[in-house]
Amino acid sequence: VKRIVHTAAALLIGNELLSGKVADENLFPLATTLRGLGIALRRVVVVADDPAEIAAELNLLRHSHDVVLTSGGVGPTHDDVTLVAVAQAFEVPAVRHPMLSEMLRAHYKASLNDAHLRMALVPEGAALLSAEGIVWPTVVMGNVWVFPGVPKLFRMKLLVLREHLQGPAPFFSRAVFCQLDEGQLTESLDAVVKDFPSVEIGSYPRLFDSDYKTKITFDARSESDVEQALTAFCALLPGGEPIRVA
Amino acid sequence: VKRIVHTAAALLIGNELLSGKVADENLFPLATTLRGLGIALRRVVVVADDPAEIAAELNLLRHSHDVVLTSGGVGPTHDDVTLVAVAQAFEVPAVRHPMLSEMLRAHYKASLNDAHLRMALVPEGAALLSAEGIVWPTVVMGNVWVFPGVPKLFRMKLLVLREHLQGPAPFFSRAVFCQLDEGQLTESLDAVVKDFPSVEIGSYPRLFDSDYKTKITFDARSESDVEQALTAFCALLPGGEPIRVA
Repeated sequence: VKRIVHTAAALLIGNELLSGKVADENLFPLATTLRGLGIALRRVVVVADDPAEIAAELNLLRHSHDVVLTSGGVGPTHDDVTLVAVAQAFEVPAVRHPMLSEMLRAHYKASLNDAHLRMALVPEGAALLSAEGIVWPTVVMGNVWVFPGVPKLFRMKLLVLREHLQGPAPFFSRAVFCQLDEGQLTESLDAVVKDFPSVEIGSYPRLFDSDYKTKITFDARSESDVEQALTAFCALLPGGEPIRVA
Repeated sequence: VKRIVHTAAALLIGNELLSGKVADENLFPLATTLRGLGIALRRVVVVADDPAEIAAELNLLRHSHDVVLTSGGVGPTHDDVTLVAVAQAFEVPAVRHPMLSEMLRAHYKASLNDAHLRMALVPEGAALLSAEGIVWPTVVMGNVWVFPGVPKLFRMKLLVLREHLQGPAPFFSRAVFCQLDEGQLTESLDAVVKDFPSVEIGSYPRLFDSDYKTKITFDARSESDVEQALTAFCALLPGGEPIRVA
């Protein structure tokens, strides 16, 4: 049974994202996955590997969104502080989970050490969620889901999210491509923005190397609202526009 | 004369980043640019095209960081709300800047309309900064710098930042590559983390397709601290490690 959630926030954790050592690759697949599920991602924050800062941010995000996804800071080294920070946010101790300890023992065998066992630490009371084909379970504490930062693992783990969460209804999205520039479309845009308050209308200029100058997007949970807004907008355009609808 | 700033925050603005319509391309060049200038980027927030939310976020960020950089939401359409939000944050009106109006008039000539002139709106009291080869000036209100969201323009405008700001001292960075996994390196890492509190030490596992398993980074504003921490760490490793130093 999937849990219905309306809103989500993401917390991307890691000094390397702020220092420019590494380019984030996780926000985009997370955003598209949530969108596909009909869940509205409302806010993303990137912070350093600082437990106090992570805990404070989590307490803001988890009380103002249905679900919070974290990326990064899980592992055995000193800079992997996410699970301790989650425990701190919920004011519970971080404890070694018996099942995770057992999995680590089976994997590392004779070379298992205390450092490896740090990867078994979870906030007391956390749930472990799995999905088919995902060996390592995902730690979920309250409405906070903890994902690894390594992009390939992160993307793999999004399957767990898809199996357990969904939005209240899908989003519908259409797009119109114009050769007019944004300044020439503003009047028509303002009219449909006013007439279709339930539809999120976006305008994106394309400045280089393209057959169009402006892409206008129409998004809503109601497919007919989207269609009506798109039709109303196109009716306001001069002949020859739009050059394409998608 | 460059202004010396220690800390920075970034606010990335746009529904398209949260809905997965567009993958952010601006954080990475911004992070590397600030790092190269010796400015510490401490926090990044991604929010929707909502003036109230942008203004509230700006008021948090600008009081806790020396400089705040925004990306996106500048343009002539209804969803371009950044400059109005900056004005709101500073509790001043947004006014049409005479020089920007003149530049728009020169560019659009007879086709100039009120929508185009929205691009001349700036918070009252804002400065306009330029750099050689950059035609359109950058709006700076207090310690808030407003950049466009289009990645090619954003990267171009970073030149303005480089010409006007610098950190108190450069960052020095070294890296060590090991075939040991993170769990096997934790004891040595904990020792140098304890002995070199001024050095930021990061550990990054490489799980796929690589000649190394773990990359350890050493960062500080003191080059000799970095060298000493790196040397101390390498002295703790077994024979054959590290496989490479950079």
